[in-house]
Amino acid sequence: MRRWNGWGDDKFNLDIPEGGQDFLAERIGQASALNDCTLEDVCAKVPESRLPSLDGLSDLIDTSPEIRVRHARGQSLPDWLAMRSGEIGLFPDGVALPSTNSEVQKLLKYVQENDVHLIPYGGGTSVAGHINPVDQGKPVLTVSLANMNRLIDLDRDSQLATFGAGTPGPLVESQLRAHGYTLGHFPQSFELSTIGGWVASRSSGQQSLRYGRIEQLFAGGRIETLQGTLEIPTIPASSAGPDIREMILGSEGRLGLITEVKARITRLPEHERFHVVFFPNWDKARTAARKLVQNRIQLSMLRLSNAIETETQLALAGHPGLISLLEKFLSLRGADDGKCMMTFGVTGSKDQASASLKQARKVCKEYDGVYTGTKLGSKWAEKRFTMPYLREALWQMGYAVDTLETATDWENVDRLLEKMETSLRTGLEDKQEKSHVFTHLSHFYGQGCSIYTTYVFRVADTYAETLERWKHLKNTTSEIIVRNGGTISHQHGVGKDHAPFMPIEKGELGMRAIRALTTSFDPDKRLNPTTLLD
Amino acid sequence: MRRWNGWGDDKFNLDIPEGGQDFLAERIGQASALNDCTLEDVCAKVPESRLPSLDGLSDLIDTSPEIRVRHARGQSLPDWLAMRSGEIGLFPDGVALPSTNSEVQKLLKYVQENDVHLIPYGGGTSVAGHINPVDQGKPVLTVSLANMNRLIDLDRDSQLATFGAGTPGPLVESQLRAHGYTLGHFPQSFELSTIGGWVASRSSGQQSLRYGRIEQLFAGGRIETLQGTLEIPTIPASSAGPDIREMILGSEGRLGLITEVKARITRLPEHERFHVVFFPNWDKARTAARKLVQNRIQLSMLRLSNAIETETQLALAGHPGLISLLEKFLSLRGADDGKCMMTFGVTGSKDQASASLKQARKVCKEYDGVYTGTKLGSKWAEKRFTMPYLREALWQMGYAVDTLETATDWENVDRLLEKMETSLRTGLEDKQEKSHVFTHLSHFYGQGCSIYTTYVFRVADTYAETLERWKHLKNTTSEIIVRNGGTISHQHGVGKDHAPFMPIEKGELGMRAIRALTTSFDPDKRLNPTTLLD
Repeated sequence: MRRWNGWGDDKFNLDIPEGGQDFLAERIGQASALNDCTLEDVCAKVPESRLPSLDGLSDLIDTSPEIRVRHARGQSLPDWLAMRSGEIGLFPDGVALPSTNSEVQKLLKYVQENDVHLIPYGGGTSVAGHINPVDQGKPVLTVSLANMNRLIDLDRDSQLATFGAGTPGPLVESQLRAHGYTLGHFPQSFELSTIGGWVASRSSGQQSLRYGRIEQLFAGGRIETLQGTLEIPTIPASSAGPDIREMILGSEGRLGLITEVKARITRLPEHERFHVVFFPNWDKARTAARKLVQNRIQLSMLRLSNAIETETQLALAGHPGLISLLEKFLSLRGADDGKCMMTFGVTGSKDQASASLKQARKVCKEYDGVYTGTKLGSKWAEKRFTMPYLREALWQMGYAVDTLETATDWENVDRLLEKMETSLRTGLEDKQEKSHVFTHLSHFYGQGCSIYTTYVFRVADTYAETLERWKHLKNTTSEIIVRNGGTISHQHGVGKDHAPFMPIEKGELGMRAIRALTTSFDPDKRLNPTTLLD
Repeated sequence: MRRWNGWGDDKFNLDIPEGGQDFLAERIGQASALNDCTLEDVCAKVPESRLPSLDGLSDLIDTSPEIRVRHARGQSLPDWLAMRSGEIGLFPDGVALPSTNSEVQKLLKYVQENDVHLIPYGGGTSVAGHINPVDQGKPVLTVSLANMNRLIDLDRDSQLATFGAGTPGPLVESQLRAHGYTLGHFPQSFELSTIGGWVASRSSGQQSLRYGRIEQLFAGGRIETLQGTLEIPTIPASSAGPDIREMILGSEGRLGLITEVKARITRLPEHERFHVVFFPNWDKARTAARKLVQNRIQLSMLRLSNAIETETQLALAGHPGLISLLEKFLSLRGADDGKCMMTFGVTGSKDQASASLKQARKVCKEYDGVYTGTKLGSKWAEKRFTMPYLREALWQMGYAVDTLETATDWENVDRLLEKMETSLRTGLEDKQEKSHVFTHLSHFYGQGCSIYTTYVFRVADTYAETLERWKHLKNTTSEIIVRNGGTISHQHGVGKDHAPFMPIEKGELGMRAIRALTTSFDPDKRLNPTTLLD
């Protein structure tokens, strides 16, 4: 069953590999875990629902405590602290599970007529507070799209698939695979997040280099709003005015509920492999990565770990004997201390894959990359969606782990990366605490790339103090990001946690443009208020 | 010097090749030209400027007749008829040529304070009435960005170039070429259209398959609005809410004046060639084209002419002897009557180009394509921007030529193409007139492509009747496009001519979204009113 207070299936546990605990203890000290609250205890705290008059909707809306607990929070670190401590604060007053567009329309009518706030809910995997109720003195109805999870239509000629917006990653792919297709959208949250959520939060998947971000995959669809139904026709490209798709992408529930997504799909590839190359230092590694993408070499995935992430990944890989052999091999070829690991994917027809591989290896070689084949790449592919489970294992050991991510122009990458890492690494110094901080670049563009930084720190003696530590790290570093040419988020969206930083990034008139849309579609701010913007 | 009443430089004339006139006469009859009005006659008709109090702005705003004539109309067929007949109707009351952002701000302040309407003007190449003044009882100031035509900044690492928005195609490319870069945006209007105009009208270039549409090339920039300056930061990609760039793209002057464009550029390619393949019939040709793009073969350009366009192009190619040899060669290989010509470009490193060419030829062969090398492709490349001059030559012979274009999903391409061609071919039957109609597909996407249809008809005895013929063809066929799954424009924008068809395509709520933006930025509808939407 899905964990009510953490990531994923509660039957699946990922152990910290041999030596992992020592590795962390050496860097930031031994830790001890906080006590977790039980589901029963939290359910006992859930107050009466404030939803008025459910006449005719009682089959659709569930107000029992457990479902309200299970839809109260996402997966951000503050969400974890809230769920683990049991101090959740506000719960939705009910959870609706519509199965049809007309049921969604009924729910919209209900909230309009009864002065209720509504939060659209996809997979509940937000790490930025998208789906948390806020206290504005109104009842809150959370609407989960989980029952709208089918492949509704498939147009093979146009390679378009229509899905219910609540379809989670594995069901998207399995329903397409049966017909020989893939969407190719693989965010880290793939196991639980939904296609509608990807659109609403402008998600990006690990293979965006081939398949594109969700912006490129979202061809059109259906959005139920308080003003009626918005149907966005599928047109491959158009010069007919501003693009309505792009107003829905990233709208985070503020304009309406996305109920159907028409997505651009691809034939399953004939060939796919992930290759790993080590570079002697960051400068060569980063330049090689930039050249690969600026030279338009057809890769399906590219990820470049900095030296600390490389060291951390090798330390946590398990199999210390084999890793030690690998490091000797690399060292003999010039990739020693400070080495950086690059993983890249080649996907397509066999002809394309072999041509791309040849081109990519040539560029890597120019920057002294040591090619190690596909063994480590296969490992990455195998574990690509299980990483969030590591958070559970670390939590049980007393370590909190979170990530911060942005995207910026190439010219700015090193400067911003350095500032982010320093801010996170030194942020807890006055509390005599350390963080272990490491970074990779991913989602590469000719213009720049995403910087994805992970930080691990010890939980404090109390939940409240742990939250303070997180808040300090998160807020100071987020401010640094937007003040230094980065976006507040490349792939996690805005939610409530990033909303304060939006005006710095978008400017007053940028915010005016977004507000013009939300005000026009939802003048009374009933839909997901305070998410994205006030 | 630039023609005041037609396309391009008046020293450059393109002759109809040998046999061209007979070819048309055989199909739609002999024609005779209408009399053109002179520039002097039109200047004499220009009324007094209605612009109030030019205190402090008289250096910036020119109210003399000739400049007002030269900025009164674009390049649509009704614009041609207006200019050729001298019945232009409304002229702008003055033309401003600002050189700086602060001058643009001054002009905005002026129109705001003096109840004047403002039309932003790029290259004046609109074929949809974007820059034509309309009579709303207010003085009209046209603001040409022509003096803002410099490369302002170049970031080599991030491959970003900042241009003044009025920079025309050749100046974009020549300023970049000096540094070893290209933007790669080559619309048919390249010679005159500007980078700011491309953004404002969501333009697409002939090599969009490699470089992307202007949406992919526009990284950010500066827009002067009545509410202040909107600066869009350059961020490679972001999940921070709806994308402001995408609200400016296609805004057609309704939100403000784009003054600076930051564009994503590419190193000049090592290799570029255009290859031509003939297919025995449309079905095979269209399927091959679809496969090429759906298999993600790295091409830089793809264009597929239907049988009538192929026949027309070969007839108008000149060199009838050589063409006859070519046709014998093709016929022996199965591409005879009904054959369709495909042109594709391969661009990139030599390795990439040879890999792509190999992959592309393999697909073409599967569908019985007869490869003919690069000779015809080089001809296409050489003449790619001179085609608009042909219009002048045809006009002098008494033929009017126009194009209609859309984009639709693959599943719908044949059906819509057939409807468009039939509508244009039969539209003048009750006037006992014929049109010569032919089509190519271009701008290919996994999901679909652009349909680009050219139609030639004889001018009538009068300008008024010629305009009536055009109106009938244009409006009936435009209605067919939006009622049958096409966009009202894939690459020409909306302007005033396509505005009536927008609500059918976008729906009531789509229009609400766009209107929310225009109302927020320009509540009094001072900027380019009636363009895009009311």
